[in-house]
Amino acid sequence: MIILGIDPGIAIVGYGLVEVNGGRLCARDYGCIRTANTKPAATRLAAIYDNLNKVIKANNPQVMAIEELFFNKNSRTVIAVGQARGVALLAAAHAGLTIAEYTPLEVKQAVTGVGRASKEQVQRMVQVLLKLDSIPRPDDTADALAVAICHASFAPWRLQQQGAERQ
Amino acid sequence: MIILGIDPGIAIVGYGLVEVNGGRLCARDYGCIRTANTKPAATRLAAIYDNLNKVIKANNPQVMAIEELFFNKNSRTVIAVGQARGVALLAAAHAGLTIAEYTPLEVKQAVTGVGRASKEQVQRMVQVLLKLDSIPRPDDTADALAVAICHASFAPWRLQQQGAERQ
Repeated sequence: MIILGIDPGIAIVGYGLVEVNGGRLCARDYGCIRTANTKPAATRLAAIYDNLNKVIKANNPQVMAIEELFFNKNSRTVIAVGQARGVALLAAAHAGLTIAEYTPLEVKQAVTGVGRASKEQVQRMVQVLLKLDSIPRPDDTADALAVAICHASFAPWRLQQQGAERQ
Repeated sequence: MIILGIDPGIAIVGYGLVEVNGGRLCARDYGCIRTANTKPAATRLAAIYDNLNKVIKANNPQVMAIEELFFNKNSRTVIAVGQARGVALLAAAHAGLTIAEYTPLEVKQAVTGVGRASKEQVQRMVQVLLKLDSIPRPDDTADALAVAICHASFAPWRLQQQGAERQ
């Protein structure tokens, strides 16, 4: 299974592709899509959609894992991130990917074993779990890999649960 | 000039196409796109994008007019509407439309002449200005026509201003 983790934003969208093979994790590709703040919102959203499409086509993931978006004091940020998140979900829907959403707490718990882990601890564990030479930069890229790892750890349990419900 | 007014939402997206001909306004088409709340967000966003694309292809507008989204006490609503708005802006960008954004105050002012007009007054003026037999329903459709009318009234002034800036 190949999981595409996404950390959405209007200026930077982090993405990370994690392959799961018999419980072993491997980073296939990761990076970020940047958009210029001199451009109108619609142009930036189109750049995000079009580049995400390229990432999906190049790597052929089955799942998009993405954090749930929560209320933030800065409403303008919430709206801008919400718009970018909508476009990312659309790219997943158009490519026929399953979408899995996780809370920030679930991501921290899955990656570090601790719900109250710091951002730095999460990023360090991303590096360790994926056997990378350094912590991926910028933060958005590491965060995208973290949500993909989160799905890798939750997915077997979810499948079991679905199997149990069917019986 | 044909203007596509949009009132974005995740359950209902209102759209209204207004043609401007020598200062005369005419409603070419209007209606709404509904999505089922039993479906996942990504599926609903794809329905919005795909149906908006059909509306754009059928009517060939040059401009999308859309209200700016403001902070709302219900953050979950803001996020859901933000995601739908992002997908609408993407459809406009992919179709090469100019995008014009207006505040709710600008829309009320342009349609009724009064910034503090009620929702009902705005809808009644939409009916009068477009010579419709009744107020378009649901509200989302009337609101979409209102923002299109708003652009029709602002556009000549904006063009003059751009001309003056060039001199």
